[in-house]
Amino acid sequence: MEPELDRRTALQALALAGAGMAVAAMAQTPPPAATPAAPALKPLSFDPAKLDGLSEKLIRSHWENNYGGSVRTLAAVKKQLADAMASKDTPAWLYNDIKREHLLRTGSVVFHEYYFDNLGGNGSAPAATRKALGDAFGTFDAWESEFRRIANGLGGGSGWVVLGYNAHTRALENYWMADHAHGPAATLPLLVMDMYEHSYQMDFGAAAARYIDAFFKNIQWDAVTARLEKAQRLPA
Amino acid sequence: MEPELDRRTALQALALAGAGMAVAAMAQTPPPAATPAAPALKPLSFDPAKLDGLSEKLIRSHWENNYGGSVRTLAAVKKQLADAMASKDTPAWLYNDIKREHLLRTGSVVFHEYYFDNLGGNGSAPAATRKALGDAFGTFDAWESEFRRIANGLGGGSGWVVLGYNAHTRALENYWMADHAHGPAATLPLLVMDMYEHSYQMDFGAAAARYIDAFFKNIQWDAVTARLEKAQRLPA
Amino acid sequence: MEPELDRRTALQALALAGAGMAVAAMAQTPPPAATPAAPALKPLSFDPAKLDGLSEKLIRSHWENNYGGSVRTLAAVKKQLADAMASKDTPAWLYNDIKREHLLRTGSVVFHEYYFDNLGGNGSAPAATRKALGDAFGTFDAWESEFRRIANGLGGGSGWVVLGYNAHTRALENYWMADHAHGPAATLPLLVMDMYEHSYQMDFGAAAARYIDAFFKNIQWDAVTARLEKAQRLPA
Amino acid sequence: MEPELDRRTALQALALAGAGMAVAAMAQTPPPAATPAAPALKPLSFDPAKLDGLSEKLIRSHWENNYGGSVRTLAAVKKQLADAMASKDTPAWLYNDIKREHLLRTGSVVFHEYYFDNLGGNGSAPAATRKALGDAFGTFDAWESEFRRIANGLGGGSGWVVLGYNAHTRALENYWMADHAHGPAATLPLLVMDMYEHSYQMDFGAAAARYIDAFFKNIQWDAVTARLEKAQRLPA
Repeated sequence: MEPELDRRTALQALALAGAGMAVAAMAQTPPPAATPAAPALKPLSFDPAKLDGLSEKLIRSHWENNYGGSVRTLAAVKKQLADAMASKDTPAWLYNDIKREHLLRTGSVVFHEYYFDNLGGNGSAPAATRKALGDAFGTFDAWESEFRRIANGLGGGSGWVVLGYNAHTRALENYWMADHAHGPAATLPLLVMDMYEHSYQMDFGAAAARYIDAFFKNIQWDAVTARLEKAQRLPA
Repeated sequence: MEPELDRRTALQALALAGAGMAVAAMAQTPPPAATPAAPALKPLSFDPAKLDGLSEKLIRSHWENNYGGSVRTLAAVKKQLADAMASKDTPAWLYNDIKREHLLRTGSVVFHEYYFDNLGGNGSAPAATRKALGDAFGTFDAWESEFRRIANGLGGGSGWVVLGYNAHTRALENYWMADHAHGPAATLPLLVMDMYEHSYQMDFGAAAARYIDAFFKNIQWDAVTARLEKAQRLPA
Repeated sequence: MEPELDRRTALQALALAGAGMAVAAMAQTPPPAATPAAPALKPLSFDPAKLDGLSEKLIRSHWENNYGGSVRTLAAVKKQLADAMASKDTPAWLYNDIKREHLLRTGSVVFHEYYFDNLGGNGSAPAATRKALGDAFGTFDAWESEFRRIANGLGGGSGWVVLGYNAHTRALENYWMADHAHGPAATLPLLVMDMYEHSYQMDFGAAAARYIDAFFKNIQWDAVTARLEKAQRLPA
Repeated sequence: MEPELDRRTALQALALAGAGMAVAAMAQTPPPAATPAAPALKPLSFDPAKLDGLSEKLIRSHWENNYGGSVRTLAAVKKQLADAMASKDTPAWLYNDIKREHLLRTGSVVFHEYYFDNLGGNGSAPAATRKALGDAFGTFDAWESEFRRIANGLGGGSGWVVLGYNAHTRALENYWMADHAHGPAATLPLLVMDMYEHSYQMDFGAAAARYIDAFFKNIQWDAVTARLEKAQRLPA
């Protein structure tokens, strides 16, 4: 596990808190009374030492550094935004630069939580879920083929693959995303796969295809099924 | 109203349908058996001649050309994807180029439908909705100030402002988006504002601030309230 | 002409200057001695009242509000970056949010200056330039067809079309760009076409195809030719 | 070294070549007369076994899989574009999807070639180059601080840091880029640093800061100096 990024982000957060720093800090801004508590990470729902073909070291680094880094940065972003809104002099372009980080980090935090929660299973989808995907995509295999093809095309770059339920169109679809700021409109995620290189380089180097196979072996389909059932109960 | 783009897109759609089109369609490709029907646009929920400070010409052009163009392109995108999945030889990078268009056009279609449906009102928010936003943002005015600041910062460029209910974090938040492919993760839109220049240039030229005022005067808050109530009934 | 955005940006710049505001303003930051002079806009190289099919109102609004807005914002961005570098406490993510605006606004300013400078002509390319493009693209018409197709595909959205000379590969190529932050690597622009909707909505509404025709009628090919000659003299 | 992506891309390229492939290739499409030769990679200008703190395995994988993958994909993209231009029925949106890949892969190929060519040195900048950067940034250390800060902010994500000479503004500036499609307008790259995670995960996991230190120790400043001298000789 590589604590460097972790430590750096924590130090930044402390500096940020300690200096009363703000995008549009007014001269009179008082320092905060106390250092805010570090925001909580959602614990892994599985034992990272027990995945099939994904190392504990990879999963822990991903969870602590990449997911954790975004949790901590998102907390700092929200503080910056609050300070910036308090000043009428913050230019809108500067405010929006931080709102872009807000969108990006919200995506990173939320999609990472879906991702880890849909790992730790045995990769075997319940019959009802297979049927739902079969109904939407022609066959279950057609769904899996498209999901894997999108993942393959993202190898060597950054992004996510998301199977989602679109609350507006009521369609089940796979979506390609190139970064955390991308996201399908009005969509509840069902199965989320991280394709940033931090998801696999440590175990597989550039061999993204091997990671894709390992991901499919470890899907926690019960989580996916529960999300699907909840999405289908969404009021019309 | 400016029918040119409309006509062009329609001609493309016909060409596409008529020719069994492919990126590099071979000359000998036979035409499909029948031309598919043009996809339906969601009708405006209000009389575009009766908005306060937004012209009928602007609204009709926006609806027919920009929203309509995306509806028609999305239909063509889906056909391309189906054809591309049928071939094992489609490289993943090329498939994903079209999946990017899929994400982008899905965003355009869905957000436009939310946008038009939250226009046509008198701009007055019901007390319960004002209270919900006040609870989430400190005050209703604090919500409105942030929403307007994001909009201001998007003037002269492209993008959307979205007040949304995040189904994962259960938070009400405003989001900045720079294009149709952006989107807040796991979020149900409540109030959607188009900041692409086609939303205002025809009436206001570069004066985006005047459009923002006009938008607020015409918000259909009943639609926003209904969306909020539905989002809050989402199963936990 | 629509001065609102103009005025707003100027007021922001003043507020920014007057308040000694900074991303990481220290409590002790003194106000600057004097309001900095507004940065200079590059004047139009042609009489905007005399273009063929593009109105003076459109060109003046585009130059003053969109190009001018980016010139003024870029100046404010550079001041923010200088202030932020002066503080060790600025988190790297926040610094990069402003560096993104730096990339975006640099693109906007630079490409707008190329754009206006390649307008004001009669649309007739000199024989030597036609030959150079013919050599690179098969025929001059093949070059024009691709350039126009890219422009058509950008209608209704945002972006640029750039014919450029790649200083690394020594190739003449057309490039698609979706926003000001995009840019072909190591490339000297030769012909630049703005496809943001502020380039045409005021005259043509959504009918981007009519703008594309008008643009081609007004290309100042002497400027393009001079740029090409300079690029070809680049040391190997 | 990780040959999987390599092999996959090569197989795709073969499939592409062998099948006369199209996005929606018809079953009856005949194969082309001959398989095109694989495009050439620019060889490393240094011995990858001899860098200080960057492993041979990392550099070889980066060069073969990530740079090499983009070289091969760019060749396939150009073939697709040629085929697509030959058909009048290709919709502009689809053409532009591939032009986006063209922009992205051109950036990847070109920036990777600059990157590898500015590695293999001892990290010590000649006095004249130090002075040029000092003149542009205040001090040489101020330049290095900003370059490193941008790099730090990109850790855990994707992108590039580029010190460039802007041929239009005649300024030396550092630029942040989040992906290969980004690029500073009209800029000749002088020092290029890859911050995609494939640049460091294999050696350092998530500890991007350790990679940044190692990168600086291995900069080939003679290459940077030669680029700077060439840029300064650009005709005014």
